[in-house]
Amino acid sequence: MNITAAYTDLYQITMAQVYFGTKPDGRAVFDYYFRHNPFKSGYSIFAGLKDVLDILETLEFSSSDISYLEQKGFESDFLEYLKNFRFKGNIYSSKEGDVVFPNRPILQVEANIIEAQIIETLLLNILNFQTLIATKASRIKFSAKDGILLDMGLRRAHATGGYYASRAAAIGGFDSTSNVKAAEDYDIPSTGTMAHSFIQSYDEELQAFRDFAKMRPENCVFLIDTYNTLKSGLPNAITVAKEMEKRGDRLLGVRLDSGDLAYLSKKTRAILDDANLSYVKIVASNQLDEYVIKSLKEQGASIDIFGVGTNLVTGKPDAALDGVYKLAEYNDTPRIKLSENIIKISLPFKKQVYRMVDDNGMFYGADAIALFSEGNVTLMEHPFDTTKSLELNSFKHEPLLELVMKNGKRVLPSRSVTEISKYSQSRLKQLPNEYKRFQNPHIYKIGLSSTLKKERDTLINKHKF
Amino acid sequence: MNITAAYTDLYQITMAQVYFGTKPDGRAVFDYYFRHNPFKSGYSIFAGLKDVLDILETLEFSSSDISYLEQKGFESDFLEYLKNFRFKGNIYSSKEGDVVFPNRPILQVEANIIEAQIIETLLLNILNFQTLIATKASRIKFSAKDGILLDMGLRRAHATGGYYASRAAAIGGFDSTSNVKAAEDYDIPSTGTMAHSFIQSYDEELQAFRDFAKMRPENCVFLIDTYNTLKSGLPNAITVAKEMEKRGDRLLGVRLDSGDLAYLSKKTRAILDDANLSYVKIVASNQLDEYVIKSLKEQGASIDIFGVGTNLVTGKPDAALDGVYKLAEYNDTPRIKLSENIIKISLPFKKQVYRMVDDNGMFYGADAIALFSEGNVTLMEHPFDTTKSLELNSFKHEPLLELVMKNGKRVLPSRSVTEISKYSQSRLKQLPNEYKRFQNPHIYKIGLSSTLKKERDTLINKHKF
Repeated sequence: MNITAAYTDLYQITMAQVYFGTKPDGRAVFDYYFRHNPFKSGYSIFAGLKDVLDILETLEFSSSDISYLEQKGFESDFLEYLKNFRFKGNIYSSKEGDVVFPNRPILQVEANIIEAQIIETLLLNILNFQTLIATKASRIKFSAKDGILLDMGLRRAHATGGYYASRAAAIGGFDSTSNVKAAEDYDIPSTGTMAHSFIQSYDEELQAFRDFAKMRPENCVFLIDTYNTLKSGLPNAITVAKEMEKRGDRLLGVRLDSGDLAYLSKKTRAILDDANLSYVKIVASNQLDEYVIKSLKEQGASIDIFGVGTNLVTGKPDAALDGVYKLAEYNDTPRIKLSENIIKISLPFKKQVYRMVDDNGMFYGADAIALFSEGNVTLMEHPFDTTKSLELNSFKHEPLLELVMKNGKRVLPSRSVTEISKYSQSRLKQLPNEYKRFQNPHIYKIGLSSTLKKERDTLINKHKF
Repeated sequence: MNITAAYTDLYQITMAQVYFGTKPDGRAVFDYYFRHNPFKSGYSIFAGLKDVLDILETLEFSSSDISYLEQKGFESDFLEYLKNFRFKGNIYSSKEGDVVFPNRPILQVEANIIEAQIIETLLLNILNFQTLIATKASRIKFSAKDGILLDMGLRRAHATGGYYASRAAAIGGFDSTSNVKAAEDYDIPSTGTMAHSFIQSYDEELQAFRDFAKMRPENCVFLIDTYNTLKSGLPNAITVAKEMEKRGDRLLGVRLDSGDLAYLSKKTRAILDDANLSYVKIVASNQLDEYVIKSLKEQGASIDIFGVGTNLVTGKPDAALDGVYKLAEYNDTPRIKLSENIIKISLPFKKQVYRMVDDNGMFYGADAIALFSEGNVTLMEHPFDTTKSLELNSFKHEPLLELVMKNGKRVLPSRSVTEISKYSQSRLKQLPNEYKRFQNPHIYKIGLSSTLKKERDTLINKHKF
């Protein structure tokens, strides 16, 4: 499956046809934002921007898309329009890898309303998922501290979604991936040695290790739990490690993939050290996530490298980020969507978001949303609680949304996964640790400029029943 | 991203290199199976086979894959082998859409060990995910009874995994999808009308409905909760429905996307009926899953059509099926993987699975696993509990694994999603309802023939410490 403009929901095309017939030149501003951090996290890591921009630069309907839509009964003048469809709008976005928060625009699309509508689904599809996984990865990194992190989730990923999961995991702080295709296309370090089947294909585990060590002496890691970790796998690994030493090679590590990882890793470490193999690292895998790793660390597990799969690439337990795409402006007039649920009321107008940074370069814990051309915000108000406001004069105002695409073309060079990951780490350093803890993290404040709040309230009153 | 043979874990290629250098002609039999039904379900629906076979028939390494692996340090004779890599093995499989259960082979691969290893990741990646989603869809259908089911999950799906999610949802019983690309490629009915943004782009909701009804009079559904469902959306929908009647058109439905769906649907039904619009259907969406739909039904909600998104396409809350791929035979000798956890001990040998069907054509609740050429099983034994066995003479034995690919080529014609979905429904009718309930469903029995059990136990003893 190649992504074409038909990678969308049918209602986008249905609406597009009505726009085409009634107001083909309408200009829209849409906000992309999410309502809750996933995993009860205190922050999220924004990811997926590069893929969205790459796709938008060349997006079109294929001839089979057009035939399909013709069968669906769309009319010929509209199909003619779709044949020539290109995204020619502007996109203002947060930087990929940045620390972001709920209920403020992460990205804004400013385009012809037909174009903005047709791209909605793919934009949500890519950004929601990669942001989910980058956030998960970042939390796992927070737990693992200086432990090395390997993504090995492709087999349980959501089909080809696993390709994007590996990219997002690298952005969130993973050191390498098992996913060859993602490693190749996104220039992510890749690693991988052996599965149980390799050992099972031999009559003797020892011979399996010997063959492997001879053919692949570099970065050699033995999986030691096929039959019995401490009675078979580890002694055999030590035997072969000693044989490798005689050839001038060094065993990189042994991998534990079952049993109690705290107990087994400590035992394994002691046995390896006794055998003068303190350079041999211990890799652990098996249903790891940020909580299991934290608990293993607390129990003094001796693990150098963590292999994380399913829980990472599927973003368990949340499995989705609740990102939405809401109309904020149409033909220069502000637009709003009401809801009985106050958090679901959308924000009108094209906007800018400012992050407050203190004198030490640390995030103060507040992003202020203002009208696009309003400039710095002196007083930030709570979106609904009229008793709450915050003076912002003493902070540096860092504008977060920058023009990344103009008239359908990128205006900033695309960054590598490594650069984005480094940027993400540097931004996380600016975020105080109380936003990073797992239990009831501190709540980062999002507020509105007084002007935006007043204008929004006027619109609410206009539509209120 | 196109799926090539590099859509795999790096360790498959590393192992392949060692096999290539030491035993390039080894023949392997691998079992694909899972250990637990997802969602605490009493059954699963097998899906994804067609995609796996399609991919395998043409799978190869691209030239950029080869360059990448060259950079990774793989040697030139092995790279030469990879350039000519094709999957030329045999596959025995359960029928796609069948009702399947944990801890019995769903599919077996019989191939050169290098080929069998390289395809492992993609096979797991596609089958695990589609089986997860088809199972979820089937449970939602069980709740919704004769309600129509729409998949509208693409925006929150795991990137391009959403394409396969829509296919699996259709197999599990969904009637249509919002996903244009999946509908086009897999010939699934597609539907979609309007989003909130469409209404917001107008100064007045009424005008939005009017424009839409004129341009799209067929299958017209108004979204009525943008400002206020009962005070604005519904009255405006009724006004336009009456205007449509004068032109000889009929409003298909109204959609509720927020608020209490039981309360609002009953109110809406009554108001529509009072307006002589009893033909107008009610569509409901907003975080639905099998439990919410069951509860809405129990409370007498008046909903004709359910739109289900995130919970369906992400397979929440499980987000993954725990399917594995285990070596069962190598060069005609049986192979086993042990574990401290008894459920993780693999089954040796190439095998057949028989389903017991009673005189009424209903599933008795037992699948028996036997050696491949053993034939009918007269006595089925519990895999580990020696006190439990079952006489099977009185049942019809239905063999479940059929040869679907021989020497890398399909030997059975591929079936459409509609055919697979119908087959799945017919198989579910054969499954007694006690396996379908959500709370503690009856446990379907999986057992071994006496011969298989004896041979397996011999192997366990051989490797025991």
